Amino acid sequence: MNPTISRPALILGSGEDVPFTAPTLKNDNTLIICADGGAKLARTWRLTPKIILGDQDSLDAPTKEYHRAQGVVFRRVPTEKDETDLDLAVEYALQQGATSLTLVGAWGSRIDHALGNVELLYRLALMGLPNQILTRSHRLSAFCTRFRATAQKDSIVSLLPLSPEVTNVRTRGLLYPLNGVTLKKGSTLTISNVATATEIIVEMANGVLLIVMQQ
Amino acid sequence: MNPTISRPALILGSGEDVPFTAPTLKNDNTLIICADGGAKLARTWRLTPKIILGDQDSLDAPTKEYHRAQGVVFRRVPTEKDETDLDLAVEYALQQGATSLTLVGAWGSRIDHALGNVELLYRLALMGLPNQILTRSHRLSAFCTRFRATAQKDSIVSLLPLSPEVTNVRTRGLLYPLNGVTLKKGSTLTISNVATATEIIVEMANGVLLIVMQQ
Repeated sequence: MNPTISRPALILGSGEDVPFTAPTLKNDNTLIICADGGAKLARTWRLTPKIILGDQDSLDAPTKEYHRAQGVVFRRVPTEKDETDLDLAVEYALQQGATSLTLVGAWGSRIDHALGNVELLYRLALMGLPNQILTRSHRLSAFCTRFRATAQKDSIVSLLPLSPEVTNVRTRGLLYPLNGVTLKKGSTLTISNVATATEIIVEMANGVLLIVMQQ
Repeated sequence: MNPTISRPALILGSGEDVPFTAPTLKNDNTLIICADGGAKLARTWRLTPKIILGDQDSLDAPTKEYHRAQGVVFRRVPTEKDETDLDLAVEYALQQGATSLTLVGAWGSRIDHALGNVELLYRLALMGLPNQILTRSHRLSAFCTRFRATAQKDSIVSLLPLSPEVTNVRTRGLLYPLNGVTLKKGSTLTISNVATATEIIVEMANGVLLIVMQQ
């Protein structure tokens, strides 16, 4: 795998809380993967996935037919498996050399799945891979070391430690700046900060942070 | 404070995902606290809180009037504060000697708040205090050492490590039992287990676990 080639992955799950429109694919090389019921969302958004992973029981016939007509590969995975469908999709993306991962349909009425998908971001952060979950109104990313993103001015930006401690946190572009503080897991002190610039930068020495940006 | 006296706290927040009916108060001594907009929910459920904490800007006049007529104490907290409203309510409950904490209105469209409320459970777990968030369809609890709960047979039960590692996990009453395994944060392997009994027991040596039970 040539590490200079960017290979973003867009993974579609079956969680209900999804953006109103499909994310813009800035890269022709984007690998689109559906985790089971996410195939319905791909159809709604007229996206052609490379593969649909799942037990297929939750896919209606028209959705299956739509994707079959476009030659999409279906890979059946057993209903009784250890990992979640989205976890399998993330693993598939990594095997295919994904260099950044966007998860959609990763938040909804199944709270355990939603929280499990935040765990996937945590795992990707530990691997140093850019990652995000997009919902109708939020963007979530986990990271170590450094995070940089464009933000809407005046929008709410929250930071949540995923590791027991996150040390020497410094921010730019936030109303209540952090200047080298240590954040402890379990605290809500860094919830509801506010973007004062269109570029936000968060840096830290050690630990894993989750950033939740309203959009 | 007499440690032999059980003092449950019921904290009502303004998250939209709430149970269809009010939790049954099994203890006359239950301390009911509203975090700001949670006062609306208290009114809907005809519960009389001991106190309403918040900036009051999000409370409509009829809700204020309803609670004032019952002599409820309002404590105004500044809009610009470090902790979330629910965090302040939890701290108030602890000051009043709460021995267990139930959070309702702690899950909804504000994803950062929802995740922050899971952090509150984590903090309470570290203190050894029984805790739970109740939503329309789930019950979430964080714990160290041991958790015991009644469950609906065949309902989905998920476990998620909140600490980097949870060691020597043992379960009873689950379809896929765990017998002394170590769970690592970031894994989805213990999502979607199934209750096979009406009593579930989870024990571990070290770490903090979150249990998410469908109900």
